[in-house]
This record gives sequence, structure tokens and C-alpha cells, in this order.
Amino acid sequence: MAQAVKSTYPEVKMAIGPDIENWFYYDFDFWEVEFKEENLKEIEKKMKNIIKQNQKFEKYSLPVAEAVKALKAKWEIYKVEMAEDLVKTGETEISFYRNVTQQWAETFVDMCRGPHVEKSLDIDENAFKLDKIAWAYWKWDSDKIMLTRIYGFAFESREALDEHIRLLEEAKKRDHRVLGKKLKLFAFSDKVGLGLPLWMPNWAMLWKQVEDFWKEAHEKNGYDFVRTPHIGNKTLWETSGHWGFYADSMYPPMEVGQNLEEVNAWIKAKESETFLLKPMNCPFHVEIYNEEPKSYREFPLRWCETGTVYRFEKKWQLSWLTRVRWFTQDDAHIMCRKDQVEEELKRVVNFILYIYESFWFDKNTVKVYLSLRDPNNKSKYAGNDEGWDLTQTVLEKIAKEMKLDYTAEEWEAAFYGPKLDFKLKDVLGREWQCSTLQFDFNLPERFDMTFVNDKWEHERPYMLHRALFGSFERFIGLLIEHYAWAFPVWLAPEQVKIVPVSDVFLSYADEVYSELRKVWIRVKIDDSTDSLNKKVRNAEMQKIPYILVIWEKEVNEKTVAIRNYKTKEQSEAKIAEFVTLILEEIKNKR
Amino acid sequence: MAQAVKSTYPEVKMAIGPDIENWFYYDFDFWEVEFKEENLKEIEKKMKNIIKQNQKFEKYSLPVAEAVKALKAKWEIYKVEMAEDLVKTGETEISFYRNVTQQWAETFVDMCRGPHVEKSLDIDENAFKLDKIAWAYWKWDSDKIMLTRIYGFAFESREALDEHIRLLEEAKKRDHRVLGKKLKLFAFSDKVGLGLPLWMPNWAMLWKQVEDFWKEAHEKNGYDFVRTPHIGNKTLWETSGHWGFYADSMYPPMEVGQNLEEVNAWIKAKESETFLLKPMNCPFHVEIYNEEPKSYREFPLRWCETGTVYRFEKKWQLSWLTRVRWFTQDDAHIMCRKDQVEEELKRVVNFILYIYESFWFDKNTVKVYLSLRDPNNKSKYAGNDEGWDLTQTVLEKIAKEMKLDYTAEEWEAAFYGPKLDFKLKDVLGREWQCSTLQFDFNLPERFDMTFVNDKWEHERPYMLHRALFGSFERFIGLLIEHYAWAFPVWLAPEQVKIVPVSDVFLSYADEVYSELRKVWIRVKIDDSTDSLNKKVRNAEMQKIPYILVIWEKEVNEKTVAIRNYKTKEQSEAKIAEFVTLILEEIKNKR
Repeated sequence: MAQAVKSTYPEVKMAIGPDIENWFYYDFDFWEVEFKEENLKEIEKKMKNIIKQNQKFEKYSLPVAEAVKALKAKWEIYKVEMAEDLVKTGETEISFYRNVTQQWAETFVDMCRGPHVEKSLDIDENAFKLDKIAWAYWKWDSDKIMLTRIYGFAFESREALDEHIRLLEEAKKRDHRVLGKKLKLFAFSDKVGLGLPLWMPNWAMLWKQVEDFWKEAHEKNGYDFVRTPHIGNKTLWETSGHWGFYADSMYPPMEVGQNLEEVNAWIKAKESETFLLKPMNCPFHVEIYNEEPKSYREFPLRWCETGTVYRFEKKWQLSWLTRVRWFTQDDAHIMCRKDQVEEELKRVVNFILYIYESFWFDKNTVKVYLSLRDPNNKSKYAGNDEGWDLTQTVLEKIAKEMKLDYTAEEWEAAFYGPKLDFKLKDVLGREWQCSTLQFDFNLPERFDMTFVNDKWEHERPYMLHRALFGSFERFIGLLIEHYAWAFPVWLAPEQVKIVPVSDVFLSYADEVYSELRKVWIRVKIDDSTDSLNKKVRNAEMQKIPYILVIWEKEVNEKTVAIRNYKTKEQSEAKIAEFVTLILEEIKNKR
Repeated sequence: MAQAVKSTYPEVKMAIGPDIENWFYYDFDFWEVEFKEENLKEIEKKMKNIIKQNQKFEKYSLPVAEAVKALKAKWEIYKVEMAEDLVKTGETEISFYRNVTQQWAETFVDMCRGPHVEKSLDIDENAFKLDKIAWAYWKWDSDKIMLTRIYGFAFESREALDEHIRLLEEAKKRDHRVLGKKLKLFAFSDKVGLGLPLWMPNWAMLWKQVEDFWKEAHEKNGYDFVRTPHIGNKTLWETSGHWGFYADSMYPPMEVGQNLEEVNAWIKAKESETFLLKPMNCPFHVEIYNEEPKSYREFPLRWCETGTVYRFEKKWQLSWLTRVRWFTQDDAHIMCRKDQVEEELKRVVNFILYIYESFWFDKNTVKVYLSLRDPNNKSKYAGNDEGWDLTQTVLEKIAKEMKLDYTAEEWEAAFYGPKLDFKLKDVLGREWQCSTLQFDFNLPERFDMTFVNDKWEHERPYMLHRALFGSFERFIGLLIEHYAWAFPVWLAPEQVKIVPVSDVFLSYADEVYSELRKVWIRVKIDDSTDSLNKKVRNAEMQKIPYILVIWEKEVNEKTVAIRNYKTKEQSEAKIAEFVTLILEEIKNKR
């Protein structure tokens, strides 16, 4: 693709072009040309031509100085910068790939680590597709120039490409962005701001069901609830270290007291404060811990909170519900003794699996990643060897014992502790980080958390940070796609729609309505003047689990004609029978 | 008191000194003197002396110019400012009170509207008490000087004073600030910030019970839930008008994108945004309303949210839970047609009364205020005559029909609409604003809210803003004092404490625990090594509704020995019997 672009627009400067799962992209600086999505066709055509020429990919290396010189000669300013960056990391040679035609003419050179196919005919010209263009900052840095990114996907065969496109279509049908708009789930308002969705009634009801379930499950699992504010004094974030290493993702400070006049300097000094929106809940839970001395007898402490956090994601990184600026973590911190670590970990893993099961996520859709520290560079981590060795060993032991489909990754641990991440695959096989389970050796040190052990000594507790959904927004976004909005009855915002065929049957419809409301079924009557067909179609479009049609027969026999959205079955039952049926379904979370 | 102060400290400048229910205070500028709480005794003594002199209070008036001159002669700079303010409001004469002894000597003059008693012996020298000193800004303005305020209370008789002091003691026992600390309800952290309490497990459980109750009641009452973020773009608050007239109570803006370099001016312009923490939820609900066109058939819309808001109360205005900087309103907005106004109002009033009843607030503790507009100054209000006339009439009609103990107050309405406020009296007879029910003619205009009526015309909906608790924090604070922490079982964070007399009985204690947990009773076992007496005392100090003592007899007979905290009764029952008993109590919310 880079060759095709470069041959069409010789002035183009090439930046980076990696492959990502199922996808590839390349970032270009089109210089003075305005490249548009409709130009993709032309590039695709040229790519097919290049493939047909059966060009060879030849690798060669140059000493760094020569490589930089060669790149400068071609005015490839971004490649020059990358080469110079490589020098800093200690590289002495840089590799290139040269494309040559069968006539041994060089057509294209690119600095690249590789590997590449041997020859262009190894690529099936019918098995790739350019998808779209997007904007991307050079080196992800908003202070730098904005480049044009071309996205595409490539497969080993036409069949695989077709299958992928079919799955894409399938995903579109389930896409929570499309469904969200259609089903009045959420609203975005310019006045409120980007990445700050407003949850409309249908959505908020779905949220409530998920949240009620979550709270009940936590109460049953021996958690206590806590509640903490969305802002904290800057001192808190300095102590926690977030202001040092996380400020980029935080909303800017609110400076209080700056408008007081100079004459009242002493008042100003007294009143001046700086507040920050919280990007995480942890420091608040730590402050609650530190409110009172703790004894080893009180452990384990399991404190949970549906904590809404604010992170200032860059505009171009926002992605509907999966990446927003306000989201709610289903957070918890477990403080325990060393001898409780294994038991607590097992409980959390079991809890995570219980959650997936409750929402009917197949075990095969769960992939687990175990992040360990770099064994050769221990000094860059918080905590001590004893803590790391214990937690890493126990994490791996449990992953094995519980037969998790896990991959261990050294060097992947954050500086504060090792972790287990649980990712869910969506219809397209994309993985979404949901549950996480992380040890934290950093905050206990920074906030000097201690407890009195059975020898009356001060000891540092083990602190385990965990989330099951990850965030409510993301998890519910996944749920919508997972169920394609055809929710199990217990989750459905509207569970039953009563459709009287005409106004004559309205009073019986009211009777059915009352019976259902008595047991708090979420039901509505469609008393519009629409035709029966239209009413049924409307209810089906909203994927309401049960439609109850009321005609003369139903009124006479005190029954309801039931249409089940999911099975498409139609049946007839007494009101009481239907109530029993639906309550059973709600109870089983089916 | 002012005379006593002035005669002791001649340099003192007097500011204002009003009476408030049961209390009085006077603000002084003590000039270069440091006045301390221990000096109150001296002032009290002097006051008793003055009373004994049987001074007369003589009123006289002066034309404004002369009054100012007289005050200037006495260097009463604050009185001068007040007199000048009065001129601006059109006053032409200003009244004074002069105190004279029986020898007709003038002892003291103060500018005052009155009325006063005739002579000082009308005051019972044993029926008043100076209580404390505090700081107060002149004219409540933090840019102005800080004055010293002396608080006291006065009654018609010694008996009334004693009764008041007894009630004060009673209130202290129930004081949620004291109880809160003792019962580990909430923590205040300097690092987090003033007025930002952290809710600890016991409290958060209480919150959860109240919130679950609230949500269930709203679902049953035909409300839909919505969810909105805690920040919004400045544009939103400019449109709503809050940025214009409410900015003083808002946290300062978060300026995004200000750190981008000049070279990227166009990116800076694109990325620059200003966000504000929400002091109210209304504009968000309005934005959800405006997301889609509305038809008259959809009304009434009832949208509720437990919306956490942030208001920057001044430091010296903060008061534990009753005045904090983050609090959660149990907010709802009802949008309806004109012909639905009366019905919707009735529903809300009934809902409010149902809430009070559910928490056992006596009807006599509820006082209602009806705020109407100034009939002579209609132009300063949003909306039109039709809207005001209708809503004011209906509000009063319903207040009468439903036999509310209400007071109508003209001029008290906010500019955006008339309202009914419900205040609850605490043990001391202090009134706390809880429920409110307000029409809003302002936001529908500012955001141009409309619906299509049955004639296919655009019409403005009626918008009703209401809260039942007012804020969760304040309501729960009142609940704690109301129940003196001896909560009905359904609310109690911990419902049952099992106290095995020795370790030998632990396994039976576990059995009882499991039986109770099966029906989700919030129960804990006290397995400490404390003595029986100490265990029981600890549980009673925490006011846990039921203590189950386990001895040999209980193990053998499979029973539990029950101590009821509230009735102090002791009884014996089979485990299953106790379960039935407590579940019944929970169900009845007793």
C-alpha cells in the first residue's frame, strides 16, 4: 500500500505502518495534497497491479549513520526521526526492504523491521480491502502534526475476507452505537460535551438491573459498600502519585480562591485550594482505611463502590460507549494479610466467572492475561521481592488450578504490582478488557497503610484492586452486542407490551396491565391508533421479550395471546399462567 | 448585650444584631482587641447588671442625613454603611433606640428598627445565656472584613431556658456528627478536602437501604430513571443561566487545551473547552428532553435521578452532613401538559407524604410553605401570567384539599416559578428543608422545550422540578437524629449480632449465621475473646437491633436467646421462629 500511495503521490512522507489483529494501517503526511476516502479505490487498484508484477521483497541493512543519510536523501523526515530514536536505544544497524520487479528494477524502498512475504504474488489480490481513512497525531502526541491514516484488512484468502466482511455486517447489526440511537438508549449533546453520554430511560433501566444484580452479588459475597466523592484536593493526587504520572489523562485543576482580592491576602491564602476530578477511586478507599488504626483480626476488608471516574481522553480517541470521558468502574479494594492472599484471589476469580456465567458469556470467549514483572529489572517496581514473588506465584498457581485459558507475559506488569486481566471476545473476535485483578504495592507505601499484627507489630497489608465488569459502560455496551438487544427478560427495560387490537379491548388491557404491575413487571400498553400489524412491528423493533395481543377471544376467556420475541413462538395462556411463566424466567435470569 | 459589650470595650464597632428562632446574635468588630469565648462570662454578668438598673428603651427617628451624621460622630462605620444602604432603598427616616437609667442618664444608643421591650426589667435575668462566638464576614461577603459574632439564647422564663438546654443536650446525644464519628459512619480527610465526606461501610449500607427503597418507590410510582454526568461544557451553563446567576456557588472552571503550544494554534482552538461541575441536574434532563421531538401523547414524562451535585459552599458555611460540598439530590423532573398539572401535583404531594410515613415522621413535624410571586412586580419573573396563575392556584388548592399545614408567602417565589417546600422539624424544633416541588418557567424558555399538541402546533410543556428527601445526606442526617441511631431493622446496617459465650459454641453460632444469611439478614458473629458482658455492651453501643446470645442451652435446644435493643426485652426462640419474626419486621419497615 505504501508503494501504491508513494507512486501516486510522490511528495508523500511515510510515517509508521504496523499490522494489528486482522487490520493494518499506514500513517502518511500527504504534504499539500488533500487525500479523501474516495481516493482509496485508486490506491486499491494500484496495489492489485503491484501484486501482479510479482515484485520481490529484498531485505538489507545499513549502519545507522548511512541509513539516516539515505533517508535524508529521500526527504523521509519521519523515518529519519525514527532512525535517530533507534540510535538512542543502542541500535547500530537499521534494516530496509527493497521491492524489485522481475526486470530487477527497484520500485520502492522502506525502512522496516519486517518480516515480509517473499514476493508480492504471495498476497492474494482478492483477499484485501482498504477500509477507511482517519487522523492520527505523529507519535500520538497532540503537540505534533496530524497525519492521514489509511486502514485496511488483509486475509490469506478471498473466503476469509468475505467471512470477515460478513462478521463486520453482523457486528454492525449488533453495534451498540447503532442500536443505542435506534432504541433511545443514550443521547450525546454538544452543550454537555464530547464523550459525556446522557443515559435515557431505557438505558438507565438496563443500568439499574445490572447495578442491582451487581450490588446484590457483592453483598452476598461478603463485600461492604463505600461511597466517595468525584473530586479530591490536589494533595491527595500528589500523595498517590497520580498527579505525577497520570496528569495527562486527568481533567485540569479547579483553582479555588483565585478571584479573591489582593487586600485580603490572608483570606486568599486560607481559601485557596486546588481540586481535581478523580480518574480512579483507589486513593479515597485508602483514606477510609487510614481513618482508623486496623488490627489483623479485622481482615479481610472488602470494600466496593460503583465509582464514577473522569478521564480526559483525547477527542480522537473517544469511541461511543467503549471509550468515554465519564464512566463508572465496578471497583473494589481488598485489604488482607499475607496468609489470606490465596483465598481472597480464588474468591475473586470465582466471582468473575460467576458474573460471566450470569450473563451467558461462553467460557471460550474469555481470554486471561497474567502480567509479571521484568525479572532483570526489579528496581523499577514498587514493593519488595517477597511481595512480588508471593503474588506472582499465587496468581499463576490459581490460573492453573482453575484451568483458565491464560497467557503469562513477563514485563507486562505495571510498576505497582502483577495482575490478571480477563478479556471478552466480541462477535468479531476483538478482545475487550473487562475484569481485572491487580496487586498494588505502591499506594500502601505512599499512604503508609499499616495494621497491627498478632505480635503487636505494625505490618503493611496486601492490597488487591479488582473490577469485574471493568466499567459499566463498556460491559453494557458489550452486553448489547452480545444479546443483539434481545435481552433476557430480567434485563429488558420493557418486558411486556400489551397490544389491544382496538379501543374496545382497552379495559381488559388495563386489567392485564394491573395484574402484571402487581408483581412489578415492566409493562406498557400500546393504546395508539396504529393498526395491529404496526403495533406488533413497533414492539418487535424494540425487541420487547413478550407481546400480549388482546382480541375478543382473550377478553372472553380471560387469556392473553403471547408472542415470544426470541423464539418467535405464539401461544395462549391465562393471565396467571403467563405471570408464573415470566416470573420463573426472570428468576432464572434467562 | 450590645450595651454590655460596648461599655466593656469602648472601641468596638457594632455591625448587625438580629434575632433568629430561639437565638440571637450580634456581629462586632473588636478592633484591636482579641475577644475570646472565656470573655463571655464577663459580658453576661454585665448584662444582668444592666437589667437590674431597669433601663428604659426609648425610640426616636432622625432624617437620614442627620442619622448618618450622628453615626459618623460615633465612628460606627458599619451602621453608617447600613444607613447609606437604606437611603438607596428610598427610606427617608431612620429609627434609633436610646437606653436611659432611672436617673434619666443616657447609657446607650443603637440604630434599630425595633421593636424592643419597654424596660430592661421586662427581661428575666435568669432566662438568657450567651452560648458561643463565631466568625462572620461583614455582609456575608468573603472579600470583606471578618467580624466576631456572639451567639446567645433568651426565653420568657428560667423554666423555658432550662427546657431548651435539656433539649440541646438531647440533641447532642442524637447529633449525627457525634454519632457519625462514634459509629464509623463517615470520615473527613484533609487530603480529600473540606466538606467532602467519605462514606464508610456502615453508612454506605444505610445509604443503600434508603436508595433501594427510593428507587423501588419511584419505579412503582411510574417514574423512569435517567443518568447524567457530573460535568458539563460551559455552554450548557450559559444557556441555562446558571453561569450568570449561580457562578458564585459553583466550582471554578476546568480549562482544557490551555497547555497546547502556540504553534498548534488550530489544534488548540479545536481542543479548547471549558467544563464545570454541576450544581444542579436540571439542564441535563432538559437536554435529554430535547434529544427528540415530543408529542402530547407521550406525557407525562417523569424522569428521576439520584444526581450528585457539587456546590462550593464557603468554608465557614460548611456543617457536617447538613451542609457539604458534595451531595446527592433525589431529583426528578416532570414534563406534562396543562391539563395534567393538577393530577401530577397531587401525585407528588401524596408521594412526599408516603415517604415521611415510611420513615415514621409524625405529621406534626411537617411544615409546608407555599411561595408565590410578588403580585405588583410581575415583570421580574420568567414565564407568563397564564402559567403563574394556573400553577399558583392549583398549588394552593391542593395544599388546602390535602389539609397540609401550610403558610402562603408572597414574594417568596424564585424568579423561575412558584413552589411548595416541605420542612421537617428536628428534636429542637429547628426546621430543615427537605421536599420541594417547584414549577420552572425559565429552563423551558431558555432551552426552547416544546411538544406537538393535538392540533399539530408547537407548545411549551409545564416543567415540574421536585425532590423528596431534598438531599440524601441531609435526609439521612435527620434520620440518624430522628431514630437516635436505633434504626428500624430494615435500615440498620448491621441487623443481628451473634454472641457466643465461648469458643465452644462457635460452630453452632456458624449454623445460626448461615440460616440468617440464607435470607440475607445482615449479621455478624462476635468471635473476639472479650467477656460476654463486654460483647453485649459493644453490640448495644452500636445499637444493633438484635443480639443473639449462644450458650449451652441454646445449642442443645437449637434456639437463640434474643435481646431486642429497642424494647430491651429478652426472649427465646427456635432459629426458624426468629427468622420469621425478623423478616416480618423488615417487611413492615418497623
